Amino acid sequence: MSNNTPENRPAVDLEELKDRVSRAPLHRFLQLKVLELEAGRARLLLPFRTEILANETYIHGGVIATLIDVTGDWAVATLGGQPVPTVDMRVDYLRVARNGEDLTAVGEVIRQGKNLAVADVAVYNPHGQLVAIGRALYRTG
Amino acid sequence: MSNNTPENRPAVDLEELKDRVSRAPLHRFLQLKVLELEAGRARLLLPFRTEILANETYIHGGVIATLIDVTGDWAVATLGGQPVPTVDMRVDYLRVARNGEDLTAVGEVIRQGKNLAVADVAVYNPHGQLVAIGRALYRTG
Amino acid sequence: MSNNTPENRPAVDLEELKDRVSRAPLHRFLQLKVLELEAGRARLLLPFRTEILANETYIHGGVIATLIDVTGDWAVATLGGQPVPTVDMRVDYLRVARNGEDLTAVGEVIRQGKNLAVADVAVYNPHGQLVAIGRALYRTG
Amino acid sequence: MSNNTPENRPAVDLEELKDRVSRAPLHRFLQLKVLELEAGRARLLLPFRTEILANETYIHGGVIATLIDVTGDWAVATLGGQPVPTVDMRVDYLRVARNGEDLTAVGEVIRQGKNLAVADVAVYNPHGQLVAIGRALYRTG
Repeated sequence: MSNNTPENRPAVDLEELKDRVSRAPLHRFLQLKVLELEAGRARLLLPFRTEILANETYIHGGVIATLIDVTGDWAVATLGGQPVPTVDMRVDYLRVARNGEDLTAVGEVIRQGKNLAVADVAVYNPHGQLVAIGRALYRTG
Repeated sequence: MSNNTPENRPAVDLEELKDRVSRAPLHRFLQLKVLELEAGRARLLLPFRTEILANETYIHGGVIATLIDVTGDWAVATLGGQPVPTVDMRVDYLRVARNGEDLTAVGEVIRQGKNLAVADVAVYNPHGQLVAIGRALYRTG
Repeated sequence: MSNNTPENRPAVDLEELKDRVSRAPLHRFLQLKVLELEAGRARLLLPFRTEILANETYIHGGVIATLIDVTGDWAVATLGGQPVPTVDMRVDYLRVARNGEDLTAVGEVIRQGKNLAVADVAVYNPHGQLVAIGRALYRTG
Repeated sequence: MSNNTPENRPAVDLEELKDRVSRAPLHRFLQLKVLELEAGRARLLLPFRTEILANETYIHGGVIATLIDVTGDWAVATLGGQPVPTVDMRVDYLRVARNGEDLTAVGEVIRQGKNLAVADVAVYNPHGQLVAIGRALYRTG
């Protein structure tokens, strides 16, 4: 749904972008991994570790918000080549994420403009159920 | 601005609530500290540590979203006695938070209903400048 | 993506629901029309009239927000039988809606719970381009 | 809380801006009136009329969203001199607005940047109770 045709889009090295996710200290702590990148779309993995729990039962919502922010950012980065600053974000929590669950997030660019981009992100538990959805605005120029 | 008058509000042990913040594994990692609690209001500290950086220069927006979520939750908890699940949240990033900066968040309950509560949170850098604002909805019943 | 299986869902008279949209005085002013209803999904039409303009060129964003609110509500109503109160809503404006354009909105229930439902809405211009997207939370119980 | 000091801000004709609100056809239908303008702040009135009802009892949430959008916009316009496009908006409905109630909205600029501005808006009923709050992002450059 992007406006950017291949012609006016910069060449983006998706492999290099994939590797970059772990350069952020916070991403390293979270062990975030980019599973897939294609134009306008990113799929990330947040492997479970006990440090991300809110209590003995649930994964912390702040970690899910972080996963959404990063996944949307990486989806936008597939078009512009760089992660970009988040302007604002909405997160809706739909189902608790439980102790031990690896989470997968899929982000898609809804609108890519010269200055701003909007991305939607869906977070799934290992049963393929929606845990949370997010919508974020990024500054692209 | 709460609807809960002292009469219909449960007695809440603010000191106990203050200590509880560090029971969550994620809060322990973040070294979150409750500075102040009063009815409908919470003030929290996120001390800087290198693991929360997005890059060499900036603190990660996901950590700021986490701080907002928790601060709003603790503000709501001052009225009901317990942290409660977040339903949804909006975060607006207003100014970058820099490497080395301790962040302070102030949360206020805007509306406390039987089933739902809304809280506003403002995050400040050590110069007293607004870094981000958040608004979150919590399920109280 | 709803949790409500046909078994636990009340029988809903979709034809009656379709007609009800014009009972609201504001909907009558806007000449809102329900084009299609099915379980968890609604499609509405906002026909152009000059009174909804913000200036000579553009349709007012407040009218688009209204269309989003109502379309999400009607999508939720297909499952519960009744329009329900909106708790909160996010609207992202993606492209201006121009003088003379009829707008179509498609709403889908993302999560239907006992007490709360989340719906996503997309608004299109007559060229099939996205004008705005919205996400709203409704109180279902 | 604006960053714009009087020195770098354009001279804005607040009286002219006040009158402009009724030039929009939708504002004329809603009989919107600007009560007060000062740098970074606007106060608007939405007088009751039956056409804004959702049913016999309540004012329509879409009209309240419109009031929020316009009030935030006018608050931003006090700094830049012009109403500007809305990028996105969140509305939280806190209390129903009843048949017959005139609504007053107060908007404040939280952050005014070169390209983007954030405004907060609170909507009150004639008893001074909060009906809704909104937060919107505007494109200023």
